[in-house]
Amino acid sequence: MINSAFYLTPDGKLIGQLNVEQITSFLATGKGLLWVDIENATSEDAQFLMDVFRFHPLAVADCVSKNIHPPKIDEFEDHLFIIVHGINYHTESDVVETTELGLFVGKNYVLTSHDVPMGSVASNLQRVQADGRPMRRGVDMLAHDIIDALVDNIMPTIDELDGKCTNIESEVVERPKKETLSSIMQFKRSIMALNRVMSPQRELVNSLARGDYPVISKKARIYYRNIYDHLARIEILTQNLRDLADSALATYLSSVSNRMNEVMKILSLVAAIFLPLALLAGIYGMNFAYMPELQWRYGYFVVWGVMVLVAISLVVFFKKRKWL
Amino acid sequence: MINSAFYLTPDGKLIGQLNVEQITSFLATGKGLLWVDIENATSEDAQFLMDVFRFHPLAVADCVSKNIHPPKIDEFEDHLFIIVHGINYHTESDVVETTELGLFVGKNYVLTSHDVPMGSVASNLQRVQADGRPMRRGVDMLAHDIIDALVDNIMPTIDELDGKCTNIESEVVERPKKETLSSIMQFKRSIMALNRVMSPQRELVNSLARGDYPVISKKARIYYRNIYDHLARIEILTQNLRDLADSALATYLSSVSNRMNEVMKILSLVAAIFLPLALLAGIYGMNFAYMPELQWRYGYFVVWGVMVLVAISLVVFFKKRKWL
Amino acid sequence: MINSAFYLTPDGKLIGQLNVEQITSFLATGKGLLWVDIENATSEDAQFLMDVFRFHPLAVADCVSKNIHPPKIDEFEDHLFIIVHGINYHTESDVVETTELGLFVGKNYVLTSHDVPMGSVASNLQRVQADGRPMRRGVDMLAHDIIDALVDNIMPTIDELDGKCTNIESEVVERPKKETLSSIMQFKRSIMALNRVMSPQRELVNSLARGDYPVISKKARIYYRNIYDHLARIEILTQNLRDLADSALATYLSSVSNRMNEVMKILSLVAAIFLPLALLAGIYGMNFAYMPELQWRYGYFVVWGVMVLVAISLVVFFKKRKWL
Amino acid sequence: MINSAFYLTPDGKLIGQLNVEQITSFLATGKGLLWVDIENATSEDAQFLMDVFRFHPLAVADCVSKNIHPPKIDEFEDHLFIIVHGINYHTESDVVETTELGLFVGKNYVLTSHDVPMGSVASNLQRVQADGRPMRRGVDMLAHDIIDALVDNIMPTIDELDGKCTNIESEVVERPKKETLSSIMQFKRSIMALNRVMSPQRELVNSLARGDYPVISKKARIYYRNIYDHLARIEILTQNLRDLADSALATYLSSVSNRMNEVMKILSLVAAIFLPLALLAGIYGMNFAYMPELQWRYGYFVVWGVMVLVAISLVVFFKKRKWL
Amino acid sequence: MINSAFYLTPDGKLIGQLNVEQITSFLATGKGLLWVDIENATSEDAQFLMDVFRFHPLAVADCVSKNIHPPKIDEFEDHLFIIVHGINYHTESDVVETTELGLFVGKNYVLTSHDVPMGSVASNLQRVQADGRPMRRGVDMLAHDIIDALVDNIMPTIDELDGKCTNIESEVVERPKKETLSSIMQFKRSIMALNRVMSPQRELVNSLARGDYPVISKKARIYYRNIYDHLARIEILTQNLRDLADSALATYLSSVSNRMNEVMKILSLVAAIFLPLALLAGIYGMNFAYMPELQWRYGYFVVWGVMVLVAISLVVFFKKRKWL
Repeated sequence: MINSAFYLTPDGKLIGQLNVEQITSFLATGKGLLWVDIENATSEDAQFLMDVFRFHPLAVADCVSKNIHPPKIDEFEDHLFIIVHGINYHTESDVVETTELGLFVGKNYVLTSHDVPMGSVASNLQRVQADGRPMRRGVDMLAHDIIDALVDNIMPTIDELDGKCTNIESEVVERPKKETLSSIMQFKRSIMALNRVMSPQRELVNSLARGDYPVISKKARIYYRNIYDHLARIEILTQNLRDLADSALATYLSSVSNRMNEVMKILSLVAAIFLPLALLAGIYGMNFAYMPELQWRYGYFVVWGVMVLVAISLVVFFKKRKWL
Repeated sequence: MINSAFYLTPDGKLIGQLNVEQITSFLATGKGLLWVDIENATSEDAQFLMDVFRFHPLAVADCVSKNIHPPKIDEFEDHLFIIVHGINYHTESDVVETTELGLFVGKNYVLTSHDVPMGSVASNLQRVQADGRPMRRGVDMLAHDIIDALVDNIMPTIDELDGKCTNIESEVVERPKKETLSSIMQFKRSIMALNRVMSPQRELVNSLARGDYPVISKKARIYYRNIYDHLARIEILTQNLRDLADSALATYLSSVSNRMNEVMKILSLVAAIFLPLALLAGIYGMNFAYMPELQWRYGYFVVWGVMVLVAISLVVFFKKRKWL
Repeated sequence: MINSAFYLTPDGKLIGQLNVEQITSFLATGKGLLWVDIENATSEDAQFLMDVFRFHPLAVADCVSKNIHPPKIDEFEDHLFIIVHGINYHTESDVVETTELGLFVGKNYVLTSHDVPMGSVASNLQRVQADGRPMRRGVDMLAHDIIDALVDNIMPTIDELDGKCTNIESEVVERPKKETLSSIMQFKRSIMALNRVMSPQRELVNSLARGDYPVISKKARIYYRNIYDHLARIEILTQNLRDLADSALATYLSSVSNRMNEVMKILSLVAAIFLPLALLAGIYGMNFAYMPELQWRYGYFVVWGVMVLVAISLVVFFKKRKWL
Repeated sequence: MINSAFYLTPDGKLIGQLNVEQITSFLATGKGLLWVDIENATSEDAQFLMDVFRFHPLAVADCVSKNIHPPKIDEFEDHLFIIVHGINYHTESDVVETTELGLFVGKNYVLTSHDVPMGSVASNLQRVQADGRPMRRGVDMLAHDIIDALVDNIMPTIDELDGKCTNIESEVVERPKKETLSSIMQFKRSIMALNRVMSPQRELVNSLARGDYPVISKKARIYYRNIYDHLARIEILTQNLRDLADSALATYLSSVSNRMNEVMKILSLVAAIFLPLALLAGIYGMNFAYMPELQWRYGYFVVWGVMVLVAISLVVFFKKRKWL
Repeated sequence: MINSAFYLTPDGKLIGQLNVEQITSFLATGKGLLWVDIENATSEDAQFLMDVFRFHPLAVADCVSKNIHPPKIDEFEDHLFIIVHGINYHTESDVVETTELGLFVGKNYVLTSHDVPMGSVASNLQRVQADGRPMRRGVDMLAHDIIDALVDNIMPTIDELDGKCTNIESEVVERPKKETLSSIMQFKRSIMALNRVMSPQRELVNSLARGDYPVISKKARIYYRNIYDHLARIEILTQNLRDLADSALATYLSSVSNRMNEVMKILSLVAAIFLPLALLAGIYGMNFAYMPELQWRYGYFVVWGVMVLVAISLVVFFKKRKWL
């Protein structure tokens, strides 16, 4: 389904809301700049792309399929087909979803294709609508603006994950629960998934910036290099987050051991104090005919005294050995 | 044993069920397209391959041997010998078995050789039988179709492993058993075996897509690149599964510790409550001649009261320290 | 905001405290050597840099932005734009902060830009003020002096981290506390962050030393190679620190287990000694009508003797099995 | 010490049991094919090799020395010096020993040198003795046959290690003992040592197969490539074994925890059942003057009833919480 | 401080104990071979090196500085400056110290500089003194001899570490103590430090052997390749030692768990045997008016019998379940 289509005439006039016929005729002129955005491509759209734009069936199939394809650049005779990935982060479930954007970059057109609405495309469409700005600097800069917006949209997710990490960390230190472990593991998996989405794109953007493709003019390359820098920064940030997750995991596991230690100490203390005292009481509960202490006037009170003494000495002993 | 053999004449007629003499004569014409599929090659077949096709003895030996050989491309003067691997996943035992397909790709023939029946070969044979379709686009595309089907057949296994992983995860969280650990370890090993089978093939398919071999025409390369993308996707999916397995393992091991913690807390609680009370009972079971409390009218009931009080205070204390 | 600006005339005279007009006119001569240092660049400064120096808007944007950008070298027609990182280590919180320095190196000027005051810039400004020394050897050596000072400033941090590590190690061995774990983890994270800041700079400095950029004269390259060596040394030192941190972590975790072991042994010992004795006392506390021992003259003392004997044998037994 | 020496004359006659003079004269003809096998080279042999064959003193020193040298290919003007490694696996002690074979491959001779008798050399010597077969295909194929036999001799070790691994796995699952851990660790070390021996050889054989050395004819290269494939297969098999060892280790460590858990549960159960009952008995063992229950006709039996009731309810409670 | 200086005249006469003037004049002839060894270079020596030999100030600074610099080769117009590392192993403290040797290799001189006396330099000086041997084969072979001796000096350390490892292993298996853990960690750190010192030198020596520098003649390269092989062997040996250390660590940690298990079993056994018996004794210690068993003639002995029976059955039960 064609979501939006704009044409910038060679003399700088912007025409929007193009229909299929207009697209076909403007494309045929080979001049000006055409941007067609397709959302949720159907097999009908596929036919249109193959007939009018003469795109390769495999590239078109990638656009129609709902699967996620690895990021890549396919170079055809007169255009590039680029797949880049963005992310969609679901805060509640802490799941990082990958979104896919297909870009065809030709001499005088850019064609974008995606399955779900994408913020990076929408914001650029709005800016074009306003004054045609992103289209006035040529196809390579238009493609740049879209990819750049896609990459910039990742920063808020990093920030959110950062916040989540702070929560997890304080939870681990203050009151670790059973569920804490699975949050940590889920968080780590999100970070690793994010990393796996982003890191192949660095190489991809680098090859655009390096001048491997003539469609990207020399002037535009430095801008692509700028996207590369953003991706490098994202990689460093995700690595930091992963370090934090690893550290939270180690702290959690250790806190479980520490808690067990504490419980064991209490148990040992209780046993060490009460078992000797119980023995004492048991001894004077024996029924021997001749047990001189039993007849002492203050025997009972002496036993009480001994018991209190033993208990106190044991507590002091434990305190000294730092077991309490 | 020749399983199936087709010949597509230069004028597009399809002849099936070829016998050895027909294969020899059609091959000698150097025209049209011949596809011979050999299952469970015997030494007799080996002789036939060396005599008629003039294949190298080492390549033929790889076909006859029942061992698994690493995936590879051997380039000979006028043909390629390719070994690719598929997988056979046994759900019950969670074992990933590697299957091997040998492909000879010449100017006007494709020869496939395998030890066990392979879905990817069978499906293409059927399509050829129906209307000769996969053979009408040339040797390189025929080889592509077979390898592509082989790689596509891996996706259901990934899905099955994914389902298994979900089962394991819920088992770990809800009711971890002794056997859970070995399922996790077996699952992880399956994933790693799968990864080891697939990852060398990526490089192999890449070299076919890059145009290293003249047998693969320029037009066909983009299709091989497409297989490469599938393999890249499979790699990402298996990495995600491996993350899940690691996370399940950590959760399992931690749950064992947690259970121990719980049991220890019960033990400590029981000891901490009953040992002091037993001491109290022991004290009033002593046989001292002079123990004033014993003569008190309500001494016995006072002791009962004290015992109940101590027990309640201890439970409250434990509750407060979150040990219960 | 222009923090400082110096001009070294072709005949070796040094003029300081330049204003914007002077900078513009000296720059226009294309002779001598100009050093402009900008701190906390505003959008006004950005305009100045783009108008007078003709820097690329993206490079200027990197200077104005308060974000940390990955270290890099951008080559423009007649100048280089270099981003290098230093570190700011906060001892109390054990946090390694990255600071960023942007350098424009042209034919006859060096322009430095940073957000916070940087020791490496300040010390070189002072030396220039004194006798113009760092400026007398050309732009490439001036840039070298600044980057060199930046890298040298990292050594005190390494030393401080080294001291911290020694503290942690002795704490782990002598009296591990709950907080020790989080110090170890924080320390490890600092080391890894430091490593992530420094290691990309090695490659960067290497490319300057290798002669990839004509702005760096052949004579100056060996000096850049010297910075490279410093970075290599820093990398080895941080790796050693990381080993120490890993070893401290393992020791800490093991000490927790050891402590538990010790507590368990005490508990077992107490139970193993007092439970048998209590049984003995319990037996002679039974009220059977006919219990011959009870009537013995020294029965009571015999029991005492037996108890002491049992206790001593158990202690000896435990000592022998090294459980005490 | 010359172990064996054969000469194949240009017209295909085989002469064995050569003495030093014959070797020297046959070598001087520059025709035919000479194979000299030296076992346990002495300094006398060294002199002979340097004088007659004109080998480099360093290469000869490698042959004489009893140390293990890394596998390598040294190219000299008219011959190659190759060091390859085989293994000698001691089943009982599970130790993988490396054996070293030095090969000089010249235009018309192969010279092998080893310290201990090697199966791969012996089997080829036998085949030569029988009908001269391995020598009839040229120096490169003779060298190939020897190296191939060396690599093939590794497969039985892999099989033996595989069997050992199955033993360890069943031991871990059924009845883990203290010694099991050290078997696992020893097994893992054997696998890693094996891997370290084999993996550098892959690159070495690859360089022979790639045609880097003119001594290896184009026809022979595919045979070297075949050895490369064997090494690749061995690498995959050892990686699988390593996975199994890791998994056995995790299972062992977890089984230790599980056993502790079980013991703790028994302890807790015993304490939780008997401590309350003992308290009850203790209460009615007190000597208060006024304890109404003591006078009840069936008090004693009621207490017995209560005790049985409490015990049963606790067991049921534990069963319900799956602690038993 | 000039430690030693030799001059080999073009006609093979050896002159030792040179003073500064002699060095200057012999150097100026550009013929013969000069070896100057400097120990603990002062700033005066630095001046001499810069004035007479015309070395670069940075290279000279590396010699004067007491810091450890990364190993490297700096190529100057007519000489190489090489930094290589040796090690100094302190057995008692198990610390691996790095020592640094700077070598200037020119057309007709070798200049060595080190801070501490080095065995590899001393042994070569002695051999020169004896008959001038190491100097008679040219500068490249002289430099080779010195570096070779440096690398060979590492083997005894490897042997010592190997012995230490064997000690640790037997300690871990037989009687693990608290200190064992820190020995293991220290040992592992030593191994890793050793590895970090040696592995960059492999690449360095490789570049000398590869013929990157014209100062090293083609004939000498095979000798440098020989040093490379030694370094490769050292790397394999250290990796083996690291495996052993990892395995010792795992065994130690597991033995701690095992010991805890054993202690817990004793505790459980004691509790399981004595708590039931104590209950029995407690029951017959109750003071109910009507307890028929108490009046039985042999009640007391029956109870004794029951107790012994219970104890024996429990022990048998525990034996059967392998808990004892």
